[in-house]
Amino acid sequence: MKYEEKKLTSECVYDGRIMTVEKDEVELANGRKSFREVVRHSGGVVVLALKDAETILMVKQFRYPISETVLEVPAGKLEKGENPDDACKRELEEETGYQASKWTPLGYINTSPGFCDEKLYLYKAENLTFVGEHPDEGEILSAIEMKISDVKDKIKNGEINDAKTLCAILRGLSL
Amino acid sequence: MKYEEKKLTSECVYDGRIMTVEKDEVELANGRKSFREVVRHSGGVVVLALKDAETILMVKQFRYPISETVLEVPAGKLEKGENPDDACKRELEEETGYQASKWTPLGYINTSPGFCDEKLYLYKAENLTFVGEHPDEGEILSAIEMKISDVKDKIKNGEINDAKTLCAILRGLSL
Repeated sequence: MKYEEKKLTSECVYDGRIMTVEKDEVELANGRKSFREVVRHSGGVVVLALKDAETILMVKQFRYPISETVLEVPAGKLEKGENPDDACKRELEEETGYQASKWTPLGYINTSPGFCDEKLYLYKAENLTFVGEHPDEGEILSAIEMKISDVKDKIKNGEINDAKTLCAILRGLSL
Repeated sequence: MKYEEKKLTSECVYDGRIMTVEKDEVELANGRKSFREVVRHSGGVVVLALKDAETILMVKQFRYPISETVLEVPAGKLEKGENPDDACKRELEEETGYQASKWTPLGYINTSPGFCDEKLYLYKAENLTFVGEHPDEGEILSAIEMKISDVKDKIKNGEINDAKTLCAILRGLSL
């Protein structure tokens, strides 16, 4: 079966700070023409940081698009040209104040492949040392230590609903 | 600690078919002013459909934003004013040809709360009956039966990277 869709024309309809949006005319696999609206984003990194075998570092952060303070694992955007293997270390330290001496890549996820190219690289961080946090300008957050069993309970009962956090738990702890 | 950010002004920078994009001036929790770019999306539904205790229905679908044919659980956008409890039934039948007599809600996820308000409602569907698929106009996809153990292996080895699929497996099967 043929699935591919071919780009015919592309128009940048928004060129912003953290994303661009394009509207493309495409030829669908069935030969018909249609439009696709695509958000282009730099992607990011997600860190499952284990303080010990039962304790995970979480952060609480206000997420403006959903108007909620979200309990999630440390994560952040890739900077221009930045390698994910470096970004994960930067983000963990910025958001929690910890450095880790053991890093294990857990692959990547696509958060919304229907309309967005965002790709998040997941990592497990272990053997942690506290060096003091220094969040990004304008980033107000709290780092919190939680029992892994509590995090899993909160995922199950719907108190944790952040997709990247669920994915990191699944890839890093539950498979 | 105060986390909230207050909207000062809002400008719609793109008003499209499946999304709108707004650029808001906000007052951060620390009192400073900044901008937030937000993608507004209608959200959708995600279905973990179990044919039996060991078999799950998956779909293969080309995802234009990432230029890949993606192996994922059945899912789709909410139509204007549509209830997720109805949309999950519609999407399962459209994409796989199956109806289910047992539905269990698995809560929701936020796919990218840093810049997008997309919310996906997850469901487990059981007691399936085949009635014949009829995909959306322009939606070219294949429904595939897979062993749950194979799906988990593919999540682990990085062949399945779709966030909503990982979240559905975690909420519905792995916790």
